[in-house]
Amino acid sequence: MKYSRTFIPTLREVPGDAIISSHRLMFRAGMIRKLSNGLFAYLPLGLRCFRKVEAIVREEMDAIGSLEIKPTVVIPGELWKESGRWDSMGEALLRVKNRTGTDFVISPTAEEAFTSLVRDELSSYRQLPLSLYQINTKYRDETRPRYGVMRGREFVMKDAYSFHTGEESLDEHYQAQGRAYRQIFKRCGLTVIPVRADSGAMGGSGSEEFMVESEIGDNTLLLCKKCDYAANVEKAECKPDYIPRPSPENTQDTINTPPVEKIDTPEVKTIDELCAFLKTSAQSFIKTLIYKAVNVELDLSSAPGCKNLVKQHSVPGAPAHYSEAFFAVAIRGDLDVNEAKLAAVLKAAEVCLAADIEVTRITGSPVGFAGPVGLESVPIIIDQTVTGMNNAVTGALEKDRHYQYVAYGRDFAAWLTADIRTVKAKDYCIQCGGELYEKKGNELGHIFKLGKKYTESMGVSYLDENGKSHVPLMGCYGIGLDRTLASIIEEHHDEQGIVWPVSVAPYHVIIIPIKYQGLVQEACDKLSDLLEAEGIEVLLDDRDERAGVKFNDADLLGIPWRIVVGDKNLASGMVEVKRRSEKEAHLISPSEAVTEIAASL
Amino acid sequence: MKYSRTFIPTLREVPGDAIISSHRLMFRAGMIRKLSNGLFAYLPLGLRCFRKVEAIVREEMDAIGSLEIKPTVVIPGELWKESGRWDSMGEALLRVKNRTGTDFVISPTAEEAFTSLVRDELSSYRQLPLSLYQINTKYRDETRPRYGVMRGREFVMKDAYSFHTGEESLDEHYQAQGRAYRQIFKRCGLTVIPVRADSGAMGGSGSEEFMVESEIGDNTLLLCKKCDYAANVEKAECKPDYIPRPSPENTQDTINTPPVEKIDTPEVKTIDELCAFLKTSAQSFIKTLIYKAVNVELDLSSAPGCKNLVKQHSVPGAPAHYSEAFFAVAIRGDLDVNEAKLAAVLKAAEVCLAADIEVTRITGSPVGFAGPVGLESVPIIIDQTVTGMNNAVTGALEKDRHYQYVAYGRDFAAWLTADIRTVKAKDYCIQCGGELYEKKGNELGHIFKLGKKYTESMGVSYLDENGKSHVPLMGCYGIGLDRTLASIIEEHHDEQGIVWPVSVAPYHVIIIPIKYQGLVQEACDKLSDLLEAEGIEVLLDDRDERAGVKFNDADLLGIPWRIVVGDKNLASGMVEVKRRSEKEAHLISPSEAVTEIAASL
Repeated sequence: MKYSRTFIPTLREVPGDAIISSHRLMFRAGMIRKLSNGLFAYLPLGLRCFRKVEAIVREEMDAIGSLEIKPTVVIPGELWKESGRWDSMGEALLRVKNRTGTDFVISPTAEEAFTSLVRDELSSYRQLPLSLYQINTKYRDETRPRYGVMRGREFVMKDAYSFHTGEESLDEHYQAQGRAYRQIFKRCGLTVIPVRADSGAMGGSGSEEFMVESEIGDNTLLLCKKCDYAANVEKAECKPDYIPRPSPENTQDTINTPPVEKIDTPEVKTIDELCAFLKTSAQSFIKTLIYKAVNVELDLSSAPGCKNLVKQHSVPGAPAHYSEAFFAVAIRGDLDVNEAKLAAVLKAAEVCLAADIEVTRITGSPVGFAGPVGLESVPIIIDQTVTGMNNAVTGALEKDRHYQYVAYGRDFAAWLTADIRTVKAKDYCIQCGGELYEKKGNELGHIFKLGKKYTESMGVSYLDENGKSHVPLMGCYGIGLDRTLASIIEEHHDEQGIVWPVSVAPYHVIIIPIKYQGLVQEACDKLSDLLEAEGIEVLLDDRDERAGVKFNDADLLGIPWRIVVGDKNLASGMVEVKRRSEKEAHLISPSEAVTEIAASL
Repeated sequence: MKYSRTFIPTLREVPGDAIISSHRLMFRAGMIRKLSNGLFAYLPLGLRCFRKVEAIVREEMDAIGSLEIKPTVVIPGELWKESGRWDSMGEALLRVKNRTGTDFVISPTAEEAFTSLVRDELSSYRQLPLSLYQINTKYRDETRPRYGVMRGREFVMKDAYSFHTGEESLDEHYQAQGRAYRQIFKRCGLTVIPVRADSGAMGGSGSEEFMVESEIGDNTLLLCKKCDYAANVEKAECKPDYIPRPSPENTQDTINTPPVEKIDTPEVKTIDELCAFLKTSAQSFIKTLIYKAVNVELDLSSAPGCKNLVKQHSVPGAPAHYSEAFFAVAIRGDLDVNEAKLAAVLKAAEVCLAADIEVTRITGSPVGFAGPVGLESVPIIIDQTVTGMNNAVTGALEKDRHYQYVAYGRDFAAWLTADIRTVKAKDYCIQCGGELYEKKGNELGHIFKLGKKYTESMGVSYLDENGKSHVPLMGCYGIGLDRTLASIIEEHHDEQGIVWPVSVAPYHVIIIPIKYQGLVQEACDKLSDLLEAEGIEVLLDDRDERAGVKFNDADLLGIPWRIVVGDKNLASGMVEVKRRSEKEAHLISPSEAVTEIAASL
């Protein structure tokens, strides 16, 4: 392709909002342009790279037997009402009514569409397992789209969905997807960190996220210094590390803990002040927070204070849920409640701290004096660290009063015990006890075992060998293509521009004539033909520009091989060949150049 | 590909709304499934065919130097306000507000997006001509989506837009696109009728539609029996065919026509009754209709009765228009006004007959007595046939009264004369005078010269050699991919199923083992490998089904070559080979089969 016949509007300057390297370089190299906040158009050079990533993803999906289909981008809202996500998805879901008043969504993900298609076709166990995927446009109405295509509103995702008769079959395909993902990222030249992830709004359990390290990453990862443990903070676990407060008798068991005692704590407002006042540490304190949870699917029929709550269906067939419920959440004073983990435990769409007025209603005291002892108006959920606390301090449900010598099991019981702490750097690895550290990461891909979440709510079934009806298990597997492309640039660039891995480079070779005329022109055209005959993709910079401009643009575009053709070297039958990733060029004949480059691809 | 590993849910029965062959066959062959009214998912087999059509379109666009880009599907509404189409486009445009209240459209076509991208990048004449295209999802909120993907709401369109410094350059690319379109349809095995078309809401002049004949076509085409003339009724012209009414003195010129005379026509309501009453024919009658036009861009400052109308911009920069204006439209009594042609003449978004109350206000008489003589309250627009009428009958702007001996030019004048008649079968060809006939057609593609419609309203400019600023000319070129695919099936099927042209077939060969076991299985696997080594795409029907079921499915899927492998023939080293398009099979060796099929592709 001749440079003058394509459209690569390179730039020296970039808009001020382009903070990260990939965003800056994609703009400068004329790969993308902005149509609106979070909406980008790929120009010819960018689209070439995008299509290469797309082809790699497609090849790896085909290789594991997933079958490509193409549903629509505009999806009937009815399907999202069936699954319950019409209500639970929040404002990131772009909803639209058409001229006849029918509800639609602009697809942000396609569990519903795929489940509905399979529901209509599935009858027998012989049709399973079945894995289907699409590579298609998605839209999420991000509040703060930024970093170019790294966090755009419209993007392209490969999303696959698989259906199975049993756990083993699901696990087999889940593992195959995981291997395919590793292969995809490897072929793209990307270093990914596979981490255990919270499956959040997607539901289900058994999931792995594929992260790239990024200073602007919106995920916090916990990694072990000793072993391969890696987890998203939304799901990270750690070894218990409870150091009990010495009791007056210096014993550590409940039996020898003195009876609970109410003490005055006037003007003591924070945990720090309380620790100073009682000469103890935050680890001896049971922090108790009142949470409001929305769309709770967990059964609360046996829970204190929940007698009057009624489970509802937003539409017939959708999972039943309590639209709103309150909980007291108790955790050791030096730890933080992880709201993602809490929401997962409650099977809730969302949790947030209750308003002051609700806290007062529930605890019968001002904010700051909640505690589990004697609290009966709401279910008490405790972090598992609390089960080891037998000589603790906590709020007494009265202004300026606390309890001390509080022992779990003796002085209060939990309705539910779970791991809901936020794991931090320096906590101990759940696998090996090693020290954890933190990284920021961006999610490129995600694989989940969804179980029956969608197949049950949307009424999918098949008949087994004996004619008995079952609900199939389901998995889902996504990769963001735009973000993957941007991440390649994040990992492969230098001061001058992009340094493409060959697999996703827009062209393999750029030929730069010092001046595109006479013998040099002839030599360039011939060299270009020779390279193309070998299946090598060539960009021939035939522009009437200074050599310096062409060199700078070549570095900016990041094409893996550069061949400079000039009068002087050509007189001795030579051209100058250089890899983008190396500093040194070397002189060889055009035919040797073709051989060398062909061998490298 | 083994049949058991793909997903081709064939059906014997189809839903009742599947009226046309392509819709029925795409369902039955498991190519598509319906997600909702007008929204279809392509299943693996359908997507294979779709991708082949897509590849043909892409190759032909690349061949004429158009460059592929990928804007978003969700487009900022702001751009559509700039062009004026936010207001003029009507309800087929799916508009959506996001969480921040910003307006977006789900792209039905992309003049605005491409013009905006080029506006931001264009500076010099040296960047022109520039032709860009996308193959991307579109949405039109059809009132009555039907006929499967032939008239769906969501579809994929290839749309190209070109930008030029002058008419010659625009025409050159317009012609290249026209040739590429002919090539695309030829490669798809489609017989298309290229017709002159009204450019309607798209604006501009110089356009060609590529139609396929179809009983359910939503276009009426006029074709000449003698020459190559073909036109959409919305734009079709014809030779004049006026036969004047003999005057009492048997003369036919205005000078000898008696003075206009007002006559009583009591209880005469229709043109037929009037003809009987006056013993004349409808051809002697000047039919006068009062029309309301919406968003009129034509300058009306000199028009009668329009003094108080004010041109407005819907947003700054958009083309100015009168939001509403009324006109009297006169035409020969035996002809019909073509509203598409009338709207084009008025540069109006839409025209419709005025309400009775408006007719009475404008004509000063009940409905049925409008006429051009003495009418001064609105501009009079006459069809060009009226200019030849010098002894006509028309309404007298009074109840139960008509004028006779009316002569154009003597008794009334027109504010505007234009060709606004609806051409019909048996009218005379404008090119050669031959007789015209009608066909129903479906539009697959459309190429337009848009001129400056968008570049002007959206403020695009470039500097010429002398640093002078100009507005570029623009062309646009669309092909509907889904409709093209469906049309291929319409043209290539029989009672048993689809009969794919090789170029777009999902697979080239289907291998049917009578029973997939033992030596037959071995032979099938080996044959499949041999064919695939030649680049031939194979579907191997390894299902445990009766041979009859496999034969029927093979005919339904329409794969060009069928190879049947059975014990008996295999014993003598033979397999049975048959083309889908032929009745007779023949026995040859597997290696001969490979040679024969490879040679045919």
